Amino acid sequence: MAGIGPGVIERLAVIGVGLIGGSFAAALKARGGVRHVVGVGRSAANLTQARELGVIDATASAADAVRGADFILIATPVGQMEARLAEIAPHLDARAVITDGGSTKVDVVGAARRTLGAKVAQFVPGHPIAGSDKSGASAAMADLFVGRRTVLTPIAENIAHAVNRVREAWQLCGATVVAMSAAEHDAVLGITSHLPHVLAYALMHQVLSAEQRGLLLDNAGSGFRDFTRLAGGQPEMWRDILLSNRTALLAAMDGFDASVAQLRTAIEQGDEAALDRMFNTAREQRDAWLMRFNGNVSQHGAEG
Amino acid sequence: MAGIGPGVIERLAVIGVGLIGGSFAAALKARGGVRHVVGVGRSAANLTQARELGVIDATASAADAVRGADFILIATPVGQMEARLAEIAPHLDARAVITDGGSTKVDVVGAARRTLGAKVAQFVPGHPIAGSDKSGASAAMADLFVGRRTVLTPIAENIAHAVNRVREAWQLCGATVVAMSAAEHDAVLGITSHLPHVLAYALMHQVLSAEQRGLLLDNAGSGFRDFTRLAGGQPEMWRDILLSNRTALLAAMDGFDASVAQLRTAIEQGDEAALDRMFNTAREQRDAWLMRFNGNVSQHGAEG
Repeated sequence: MAGIGPGVIERLAVIGVGLIGGSFAAALKARGGVRHVVGVGRSAANLTQARELGVIDATASAADAVRGADFILIATPVGQMEARLAEIAPHLDARAVITDGGSTKVDVVGAARRTLGAKVAQFVPGHPIAGSDKSGASAAMADLFVGRRTVLTPIAENIAHAVNRVREAWQLCGATVVAMSAAEHDAVLGITSHLPHVLAYALMHQVLSAEQRGLLLDNAGSGFRDFTRLAGGQPEMWRDILLSNRTALLAAMDGFDASVAQLRTAIEQGDEAALDRMFNTAREQRDAWLMRFNGNVSQHGAEG
Repeated sequence: MAGIGPGVIERLAVIGVGLIGGSFAAALKARGGVRHVVGVGRSAANLTQARELGVIDATASAADAVRGADFILIATPVGQMEARLAEIAPHLDARAVITDGGSTKVDVVGAARRTLGAKVAQFVPGHPIAGSDKSGASAAMADLFVGRRTVLTPIAENIAHAVNRVREAWQLCGATVVAMSAAEHDAVLGITSHLPHVLAYALMHQVLSAEQRGLLLDNAGSGFRDFTRLAGGQPEMWRDILLSNRTALLAAMDGFDASVAQLRTAIEQGDEAALDRMFNTAREQRDAWLMRFNGNVSQHGAEG
């Protein structure tokens, strides 16, 4: 894994040096996959910290960072991607490969087509499914992607070379790379990730809006803590995700309503057999899933 | 804390030696609060394990266990409590104090009134707000209740001596003991605990019922893992809780629907300001709550 091979990135530009961008740079550095990393961001304090931690080697404006870069990762909140793409478009090297770390893909593909023109062939949309409730460069971890999935949603215009380089970079980070369409990605993540965030926010909003909010919070336990963890995420990032995937998300919310309605009926009717069936299935299937999920990580040597 | 004081329990009967019953016995033993513990349960293997772990000293039928016991904890799933109360009622010592660990209280109070007759004065309903995704005697921990709340819902018939003994026993386990009415307890827990369980089950049910369930599970990440942790709970226990608290739970579900509707409107309308406000408030308030919640534990010397 170490040693500088033909796939090594000479100059990596990371636009948005947060958990994802910082971890990508740190992972490639740890594995000898990059020579020089230039970080771009809105917060000078965060960039300074990223340099001190050795996550990036230098900072620059977006335009300066991408000049001469052979690999570019855009890892900002998705609401900023179109503006960032427009900013870097005139400065892109013809051999540069561009990818992103956004949690929604249909809107990012649209933004790339609008801003990059023919250079959209160099842009391979991606989404590493890895997270933390921490954010910023200080949360960056070289092992964040080990045993996790990165979904790529290549577009018809893509040159094969670009797709290959992006896939290889994520694989070097320890991720399992899969491909699907942007629409499929958004429908899947709308259910497994964006919907749970909405539900966690909705419960927090319900509790905080209640007249008895003090009493509710004082008597909340570890179940409440785990259920609402997702409501502790970075507000701007999640606002952008939910809005940019709103079509798939609203469909996922409709599906959730239907599922709740079935549970409600069973509860109202005191249908023990139906609840037993649902709860036993949920527990068994979740246990089996969890074993695979944790196994993917431990197999590759990181922590669960 | 050590040493045998006047409040020491001579003979403790624990009916249902699972996480809660086992941890209560282990906690009192570790703190010198009990001389002899008799365990009652449906699973011989679980009782054997409880003896081997030193959580209980002996096993017996419910009737034999409560004969001569000065303190009785019923920690079965709430659906079994009425039958257990009826079983022990004829054998209760006049000086015995009885409590329970059920997650719902209105129904337990009703069951106690129906089965105990005048002896209901000796029954002090309780609910330790502590949990784990593990169950059974092997999950018992002497520190499970440290820094956690135990809610007592004393009834009009209670003799003061009984309430005091139950309060002192939980305090000796490290819990902060508070009192409220059974109805208030059920409304509060309906929102902060039972509702999140329903929502976690509903999401699991939605995913498992989907045509693309394999694709959904393969691409689910840590957010899905945390959100659905509550769906990994003991099915019988949760079926009982949801059914026995159905009135308060259905009201909580109505409140949740209203909260989701507000979020849905903001998402449909692309109302960034409304989402920012909600998400920032949720994060701040949850962070503040979490600090108090973890602080309660670390202050008392157990782990977060």
